[in-house]
Amino acid sequence: MTGKKAIILLSGGLDSATCLAIAKDMGFECYALSFSYGQRHTVELDRAAEIAKKAGVAAHSVIDINLALWGGSALTDPNIAVPDAGESDGIPVTYVPARNLIFLSFAAAYAEAIGSCDIFIGVNSIDYSGYPDCRKEFIDSFTQTANLATKAADEKWKFKIHAPLQSMSKKEIIRKGTSLGVDYSLTTSCYNPDELGRSCGKCDSCALRKAGFAEAGIPDPTIYS
Amino acid sequence: MTGKKAIILLSGGLDSATCLAIAKDMGFECYALSFSYGQRHTVELDRAAEIAKKAGVAAHSVIDINLALWGGSALTDPNIAVPDAGESDGIPVTYVPARNLIFLSFAAAYAEAIGSCDIFIGVNSIDYSGYPDCRKEFIDSFTQTANLATKAADEKWKFKIHAPLQSMSKKEIIRKGTSLGVDYSLTTSCYNPDELGRSCGKCDSCALRKAGFAEAGIPDPTIYS
Repeated sequence: MTGKKAIILLSGGLDSATCLAIAKDMGFECYALSFSYGQRHTVELDRAAEIAKKAGVAAHSVIDINLALWGGSALTDPNIAVPDAGESDGIPVTYVPARNLIFLSFAAAYAEAIGSCDIFIGVNSIDYSGYPDCRKEFIDSFTQTANLATKAADEKWKFKIHAPLQSMSKKEIIRKGTSLGVDYSLTTSCYNPDELGRSCGKCDSCALRKAGFAEAGIPDPTIYS
Repeated sequence: MTGKKAIILLSGGLDSATCLAIAKDMGFECYALSFSYGQRHTVELDRAAEIAKKAGVAAHSVIDINLALWGGSALTDPNIAVPDAGESDGIPVTYVPARNLIFLSFAAAYAEAIGSCDIFIGVNSIDYSGYPDCRKEFIDSFTQTANLATKAADEKWKFKIHAPLQSMSKKEIIRKGTSLGVDYSLTTSCYNPDELGRSCGKCDSCALRKAGFAEAGIPDPTIYS
């Protein structure tokens, strides 16, 4: 145990739960951060709370921000339908404008306030939905910006944004998490769950998740509607 | 009139009010964005609303985010006293961790959602309190990051972050705003106003403002307590 503090962005999904397990395994004292951002599927916040609790985090905070104020995404605007997997070319309608930029900005503020310089985010750009804010170029550029935006600009410490899943396939992520004891039955990936929180099995995110478990040769604990 | 939309970060202070006037003068259709971020002095939000109304903006939105959740600044934590002007070396305790990073991230999200690529922020690094997130290096780096974080990464348009006051002295800002008809009696700059919203006249921000009006040879309309 290094006992060093780290901020972990925790969505309640498979990737961020794995990311939290990796941070914990590296010996960090974990401060989980989730967002209530006007998303359709608030079931993810319940799952995030369970995952955080099970992982024994030092704290789990939920920040309330209303990205639905201006819509612009199928995940925050009920008037835009969630497409089935493979229906979209380019950046899909489930993309939420600047979401990871906002999330990482809050993480940097929180980190600075509690004296941490380590932030974990579960982005990956192999089995992903094509969102620009999941790519390595963005994470690298954000790191530089955060180091200029904060006291890090004038002091010796610098932020490190850990994106340990960046170049892993979904199969590799699931195998890694399983080896670290992640209970994937607590996680949810679906862009369009029903009222009971059950996954649709048809959206892009469900398709990636299903294929990942199949390729990893690990039983998929997801409950599909 | 170009009719192009722009997002203007509007704090209720002298600088952002001038910035709004400049954007309007450039022919932009202005969407003002303010933040209720747990600041001690919510009088700024009332002033921002008055300034926005007088400028005839297309919309004025106030985003509620609770940066006081983790404190770390004299502006959001009542247990940290606001120092008088000249009391601080380096980055002062009135610095709010990653504030402009968060504000600009929301502006980028809002801009993308309404089809704008122009964002105005009233930072300046001449007569300022030494905050890292007011410097040109930060603004330039943020621009690059925002262009990687959003659809701009895959499309032809790119964000432009306008910081027209960046290298202006407070005297020059006040003269510019006065020439554009800004009513500075509506603005507030104080880090530590009293219950009636009157400025303390002693903090760093009041000192910079007072000196600016004196050097510009323009009567200071500020009501000091």
